[in-house]
Amino acid sequence: MAAMIELIQDGSVTSARGFSAGATYAGLKTQENGVLDLGILASDVPANLAATFSTNKILSPSVVLSRERATRGTARGVVANSGCANCCVGEQGLTDAKELTELAASHVGVDAQDMLVCSTGMIGVELPMALLRQNVSNIRPTADGGHDFAKSIMTTDTRQKEIAVSVEIDGKMVTLGGAAKGVGMIHPNMATMLAFVTTDADVEQKFLQSALGKAVDSSFNMCSVDGDQSTNDTVLVFANGQAGGPVIEAGSTAAQAFQEALAYVCVSLAKDMVRDGEGAQKLIDVTVDGAQTLADARKAAREIASSSLVKAMVHGNDPNWGRIMMALGKSGAAMNESKIDIFVNDIQIVHDGVAIPYHNDVVVSAMAGSPEVRFRVSLNIGDATATGWGCDLTEEYVTFNSAYST
Amino acid sequence: MAAMIELIQDGSVTSARGFSAGATYAGLKTQENGVLDLGILASDVPANLAATFSTNKILSPSVVLSRERATRGTARGVVANSGCANCCVGEQGLTDAKELTELAASHVGVDAQDMLVCSTGMIGVELPMALLRQNVSNIRPTADGGHDFAKSIMTTDTRQKEIAVSVEIDGKMVTLGGAAKGVGMIHPNMATMLAFVTTDADVEQKFLQSALGKAVDSSFNMCSVDGDQSTNDTVLVFANGQAGGPVIEAGSTAAQAFQEALAYVCVSLAKDMVRDGEGAQKLIDVTVDGAQTLADARKAAREIASSSLVKAMVHGNDPNWGRIMMALGKSGAAMNESKIDIFVNDIQIVHDGVAIPYHNDVVVSAMAGSPEVRFRVSLNIGDATATGWGCDLTEEYVTFNSAYST
Repeated sequence: MAAMIELIQDGSVTSARGFSAGATYAGLKTQENGVLDLGILASDVPANLAATFSTNKILSPSVVLSRERATRGTARGVVANSGCANCCVGEQGLTDAKELTELAASHVGVDAQDMLVCSTGMIGVELPMALLRQNVSNIRPTADGGHDFAKSIMTTDTRQKEIAVSVEIDGKMVTLGGAAKGVGMIHPNMATMLAFVTTDADVEQKFLQSALGKAVDSSFNMCSVDGDQSTNDTVLVFANGQAGGPVIEAGSTAAQAFQEALAYVCVSLAKDMVRDGEGAQKLIDVTVDGAQTLADARKAAREIASSSLVKAMVHGNDPNWGRIMMALGKSGAAMNESKIDIFVNDIQIVHDGVAIPYHNDVVVSAMAGSPEVRFRVSLNIGDATATGWGCDLTEEYVTFNSAYST
Repeated sequence: MAAMIELIQDGSVTSARGFSAGATYAGLKTQENGVLDLGILASDVPANLAATFSTNKILSPSVVLSRERATRGTARGVVANSGCANCCVGEQGLTDAKELTELAASHVGVDAQDMLVCSTGMIGVELPMALLRQNVSNIRPTADGGHDFAKSIMTTDTRQKEIAVSVEIDGKMVTLGGAAKGVGMIHPNMATMLAFVTTDADVEQKFLQSALGKAVDSSFNMCSVDGDQSTNDTVLVFANGQAGGPVIEAGSTAAQAFQEALAYVCVSLAKDMVRDGEGAQKLIDVTVDGAQTLADARKAAREIASSSLVKAMVHGNDPNWGRIMMALGKSGAAMNESKIDIFVNDIQIVHDGVAIPYHNDVVVSAMAGSPEVRFRVSLNIGDATATGWGCDLTEEYVTFNSAYST
């Protein structure tokens, strides 16, 4: 039985009980009305922690430090800054990351070892520590500070990305809240995603990490804006148990419900990120079903959703299915060309690997009339299904990433 | 000792002795002044053949047929058409590919088994066999028909790609000629590259195949326009021995000289393809040296040359080295961040992994003033070097691939 997941109106990363957050403007980003660039998210009590980090071989020292601290499986919070990635700055990067956690931990009264750090922004520039030292104490973490925290991690995001849901687990209502930033740049020097999820459920740490791994595989790892992978990507989940109720452990129906709710939150944040991709005007939703294995379905869905030619054709509202076949074939997934069916927004255009008669105008206007274009590719050789997300490739993406001078 | 490779003025695929070619307009492409869309390249005598084909799982039946015939290691020629990829058309595709080789073979008086076929153009549309039957006999292959053949394989290429070189091997002057088409589309339904190389050297077939594999790895396989891989990619080398002289076999100095000349021809055609990439205004030349292995150097050079963010920054003449570090890290090559040096058009901007003082205006104007931007990334942990090529990402690429309706 699927868990009953309910969306919380105006929810945020502090919707779950026992979490507070706040943010301030510390001078890292260009000053504009209401801009925030330094935030703290904290749990009232020690929270179980699960985390995933970028696999890029060039890593921000902020990631290196957080990754090391995350191995303890428990934490009190995270300090996050936008405007500077604290990456490719030599040994100073680790010194600064440590000091920033010390400043934040001391401000909220926890141990620095329990404070993680995330940085996003320009690569190759040191953190302006004087500004951070001066401004960290302006942050006033409160139980309704989630929205400010979500704003403080934005770079070129045009809107904040937040969600909270409630779900009944073992008779207890628990809450999960999330905030993320997408792939955009104030100084176009990096592509970075950060996501923070909080829950007041009491989740055993090993199960929490495994649940996060699964949720990330079907959400953040299935979306692509431009194929470039950041040096700073981080996803953190804090579970502080403040909802009460028994500990959620692997193998139970409670675990299943929690897994579903966590995946729901991650997928929602991932889709928000893609919708707000640089220059993006449309979300591309690609489902590959009938694959032999889940790995094949994922590879194929990702390859289609991230192909430059598929992305450009979506921008032009053109059901140019040869490009879908090209991207599918390139993915390396097992397939039998003569069994492939393709649907665009539920209209079938390919059957058994060849075009079937369809009204082109109908498909073009279905694509043009919707902010979301759905492709379904049925391989018809197995039972595995996966969905991936991308955005259209627009002239604005190119202009945004080229037409300026540092 | 490096071989003395000399460029032949106005050279073509028929510069090597004993090759003839010709082309005609058969009605596959939109009629314009001088447009050609069906060509034949033939050797006067049986030629040793080496070939590489697309690894896409969706393949044109033209590729399937040529790949099967190429296993014989010898051939008399190839018939090529543009305007139609003969791909994703069901079983009719193989029937048509076979008939096209029969028509061409009968026209030039050779066995159909000795004729290969290459198709490039729209995916999902059958070859217009009535037009091909009617027009193939208009082709008049001659020893100076190489230029026409090169024209007949163009789709959205803005110019033909040809080269011929001579090189002295064992006291004999031998010639290698080449023609290629790049990544462009008349109907933007696929990205296809085709390349044909001819030589009058007498090259033993197994060595020819191995020499081709090496040459392709350092040329066509090192270039990227948009990361999309065609269903129709084909490279063919015909060696007909008409220059006389002993057979060139593996392990000899003659083999070394031939290998160098073949690589020279392939690199030249590959760079021409990238320069003429859709919307491209600049060639990006990325050399990674000091890598632990050749595979690492190649991975890293390709990843940098094909990163959307690097391509966009070259379009904007911005030495945004954080993006180079990001793409490098993403490549997975072994590296030590604190040993990395980066140069832009020979100006060093990163030393030991961090920015060094440089005059930004000087670097910007070096990039702006040149049709070719060179990045050198020194990993300084080994001896392996590789070079890859890409083109800048421009608004025109997006417009070209989206702003139309089928």
